[in-house]
Amino acid sequence: MKTLSPLQLHRLSYKPALPSLLRNIKEVIPLKHASKKNEKNDSNDSALAELIPHMYSLPHLHFERGETQMKFPALKVGVILSGGQAPGGHNVIAGLLDALKKLNPASRLIGFLNGPGGLIKNQYIELTEKNIESYRNQGGFDLIGSGRTKIETPEQFEAAGNTLQKHDLDGFVIIGGDDSNTNAVFLAEYCKKNNIGTRIIGVPKTIDGDLRNAFIELPFGFDSASKIYSEIIGNLAKDSLSAMKYYFFVKLMGRSASHLTLECALQTQINLALISEEIAENKYSLFDVVQQIADLVCERAKANKHYGVILIPEGLLEFIPECQAMIKELNIYLSGQKGATGQLRDKNGEERKELLRQHLSEASMHCFDLFPEEIQKQLLLDLDPHGYIQFSKIETERLLISLVEKELSERQNKGAYAGKFSPQPLFCGYEGRSGLPTNFDCQYCYALGHLAVLLIQHGATGYICCITDLEKPVDKWGIMGVPIGSLLHFEMRKNKKQAVIQKALVDLRGAAFGKFKRVRENWRIQDAYISPGPIQFEGPPEITQNPPITLLLLRG
Amino acid sequence: MKTLSPLQLHRLSYKPALPSLLRNIKEVIPLKHASKKNEKNDSNDSALAELIPHMYSLPHLHFERGETQMKFPALKVGVILSGGQAPGGHNVIAGLLDALKKLNPASRLIGFLNGPGGLIKNQYIELTEKNIESYRNQGGFDLIGSGRTKIETPEQFEAAGNTLQKHDLDGFVIIGGDDSNTNAVFLAEYCKKNNIGTRIIGVPKTIDGDLRNAFIELPFGFDSASKIYSEIIGNLAKDSLSAMKYYFFVKLMGRSASHLTLECALQTQINLALISEEIAENKYSLFDVVQQIADLVCERAKANKHYGVILIPEGLLEFIPECQAMIKELNIYLSGQKGATGQLRDKNGEERKELLRQHLSEASMHCFDLFPEEIQKQLLLDLDPHGYIQFSKIETERLLISLVEKELSERQNKGAYAGKFSPQPLFCGYEGRSGLPTNFDCQYCYALGHLAVLLIQHGATGYICCITDLEKPVDKWGIMGVPIGSLLHFEMRKNKKQAVIQKALVDLRGAAFGKFKRVRENWRIQDAYISPGPIQFEGPPEITQNPPITLLLLRG
Repeated sequence: MKTLSPLQLHRLSYKPALPSLLRNIKEVIPLKHASKKNEKNDSNDSALAELIPHMYSLPHLHFERGETQMKFPALKVGVILSGGQAPGGHNVIAGLLDALKKLNPASRLIGFLNGPGGLIKNQYIELTEKNIESYRNQGGFDLIGSGRTKIETPEQFEAAGNTLQKHDLDGFVIIGGDDSNTNAVFLAEYCKKNNIGTRIIGVPKTIDGDLRNAFIELPFGFDSASKIYSEIIGNLAKDSLSAMKYYFFVKLMGRSASHLTLECALQTQINLALISEEIAENKYSLFDVVQQIADLVCERAKANKHYGVILIPEGLLEFIPECQAMIKELNIYLSGQKGATGQLRDKNGEERKELLRQHLSEASMHCFDLFPEEIQKQLLLDLDPHGYIQFSKIETERLLISLVEKELSERQNKGAYAGKFSPQPLFCGYEGRSGLPTNFDCQYCYALGHLAVLLIQHGATGYICCITDLEKPVDKWGIMGVPIGSLLHFEMRKNKKQAVIQKALVDLRGAAFGKFKRVRENWRIQDAYISPGPIQFEGPPEITQNPPITLLLLRG
Repeated sequence: MKTLSPLQLHRLSYKPALPSLLRNIKEVIPLKHASKKNEKNDSNDSALAELIPHMYSLPHLHFERGETQMKFPALKVGVILSGGQAPGGHNVIAGLLDALKKLNPASRLIGFLNGPGGLIKNQYIELTEKNIESYRNQGGFDLIGSGRTKIETPEQFEAAGNTLQKHDLDGFVIIGGDDSNTNAVFLAEYCKKNNIGTRIIGVPKTIDGDLRNAFIELPFGFDSASKIYSEIIGNLAKDSLSAMKYYFFVKLMGRSASHLTLECALQTQINLALISEEIAENKYSLFDVVQQIADLVCERAKANKHYGVILIPEGLLEFIPECQAMIKELNIYLSGQKGATGQLRDKNGEERKELLRQHLSEASMHCFDLFPEEIQKQLLLDLDPHGYIQFSKIETERLLISLVEKELSERQNKGAYAGKFSPQPLFCGYEGRSGLPTNFDCQYCYALGHLAVLLIQHGATGYICCITDLEKPVDKWGIMGVPIGSLLHFEMRKNKKQAVIQKALVDLRGAAFGKFKRVRENWRIQDAYISPGPIQFEGPPEITQNPPITLLLLRG
């Protein structure tokens, strides 16, 4: 049976261009380079030095073209996909294989199955041209699967190390997000300490866009996902404008950070986009957010516009202090008091509140009261296996609709609003993770795969692949290796101080948010909607080579 | 501020190809043609003859290329968009304008605003190259808006007739679905009877695909919408296969008929697609449908697959006899008994059921009992302004998830199922109505606009534009005018026998459904997912000129 569409078939023959330095990696040599100040990790030096002594003070690696074509021994490299899907993952693998074969045709690539678990359990397949050829430039992670297991316990490190040794791997590539790359440096440290020769290299992946810093301009997958969502949002905006009767409340995937929401807002120019980071900075309450939306609806109603589009980042509620506080108090009560859930289950709405009032602060009780009864019930009774509230299960777009409806009906009663409010909830989520990657992501990922091989070839371990100048044409992209240790900082995770790569939130002082802030006022009432349309693979560069707006604004 | 994306801008310069007969409409002449038997309406002859005496027995119109280029006087034509958005509407208008100007540069086109209401109220703008140029090949209906007003009462007919006369229109084009085209023939009859010279022409539009018959192969918009949905579904399938942990329950727009669901199933080869028409023919109950889905989940679980994709047509519940009966009984009770809703509101779930038991049949009560309490409450308390149940507000995808969850947990208790069931509800809806039209829809609509002018030019009224052989290359497409009167039949609407164009449901004996039936068994357990990817505008024909599969299978 046919399992590739005409477009999938067509994409198999797409040849991603490479940055000029990666075109012939046999010629490329490390550049002797004095570490610049900003390349060093200058926080928590001693604690980090103790934690990852071999990985802490590594230099950044830069490369240049050498004089001669060198000869290289065959390499054996392993690879895993880790965490959520992101368009382009298969092209990192294709880049790895092609680069390995260019170095030496006898090189081999081993794909461990279903994420870090495959390394721990030594489940793998050998990746050859034959089994990757139908995955080139395709979406999904289905070639070798992915998983969310972390290598954390001493036993897991030992098992992972054993697998690396058993296969006698020269290199091991972890394609993942912030946590997976944090994991990579600890695995690198473990290998160094235990004289395992495998070099560990990370590749920055996540549609959420929150793995970026002074060096990593963007993780792969973000471009494709933001374009898939922008197509949908642009279509909804056009529909909203045409039918003139619906308010679309669109929640966007992206975990905590609002990068995807900001990018999609700039791409589509819809009426309102909530940016969690700004809401946190302004210390807005849930009530404030509802007022903001209701104000928009009322203002537009005065212009006889009873339609619109509102973007809501997935992580919104986490950034509203009172919601955070309420969840914390509820968790203490529910997990601390035996039988609390059972007691709550047997009561009706009013009795339940009476009971809660004895355990929550006044502010938290007020916040709880704002929630519709259905969501209250869901919060209290649908706990995770550890007895904690499943905050992420709240459908924020529906919660906001329900609160805005209530607010508007109160305003209507006071004569402050007249109009018909027809909201439609929507979630732009899973469909963005496994679509066909854009030309940008195809090329970016293919280059990342090549760079990973280059780093392994030159003995680097504990490094993350970093392609720079992504806003320029592909041949002008730069390459470097960034020591992951230099990206670590300490933060509290699960009540423990841990060294992790910090999730990058939207920079409220950055150029992208600055631009959004300057123009968004114009989008509220007048309809400046843009419809980016479906991702295009063929045609002139303006429709096929258009990196994210937030990337173009990276340097202001 | 920029309000067109690079792709929208790029699409402005796309030149839709025309069928060879429409390339120079000044040469085209009507073909003297003996009406074939199947072209006549042979049901309810006398009743229809009485209702639309001038429109009833018109011949089909065919055309051929004449010998000479003729001279034509300038025409003045009006146009409205009627009903829901469908990609391509703006290209019908572009086709009208270009064809009018080709006939005679002094011709004029008047666009009435926001649907039939604009004709009744004489609200309009003149459409010129200047104001349509930025709408060529674009989605949405925002150039002149649309509306759902019907021309029904004598006053409305009079007002519409007055507007037509006031503007001295030679022709008036209604771009709409089945009801709008029904309306067109009655307006044509009214004009004829009242000596208004305007010729009324219909254009078949609807993403739902339910306006088709022996002559109309497909309404416009269906191709674009089905491809927008198929992109999303293909992405979800790829994600499902990659993450291996979610069941996506995707509801698809399309009103009663399951055309969009069938097309998207053939495009994406997901695990299960419910086809309402088949469920009705088999007289399945809601319980049966739930069993079907639960069986799929259990079978896949045995193959260690705890993920999948299921398509659900929007109109599903309408086709389940017991649901229909329950709604009917509930409506009789709620609208017939004063204060019933108030009584129900004050009660809790159990008391509510007790009360209902006195008013519903056992079968309906059984059906009601199947529904989760939340949906029961929504059904009973969230009535429409006339006091009727809002059946369409039920989120069928969520209802099914909740019922399947219950069924699976019972099977789990019995040891008949083991696995983790993580369902995700989704609705493919509004984003499909206003996307950029495919090349197919751009060309189809542009041709429809030309054909409408040709029909008006040759004096036809009460006709619908019919482009044939749509599965062939554009230059080989055929053209004809089909008298709308020949498409009417009588059915009960709002308790009244009315002459309407019958909505075309999925033909369970047609080749498209036949193909689906033959192959769907293979899609259940093995994953034969296809990812059609985003609509492409540039590139080889296999990715840019690919009409719907159900169209290609039209002739078996």
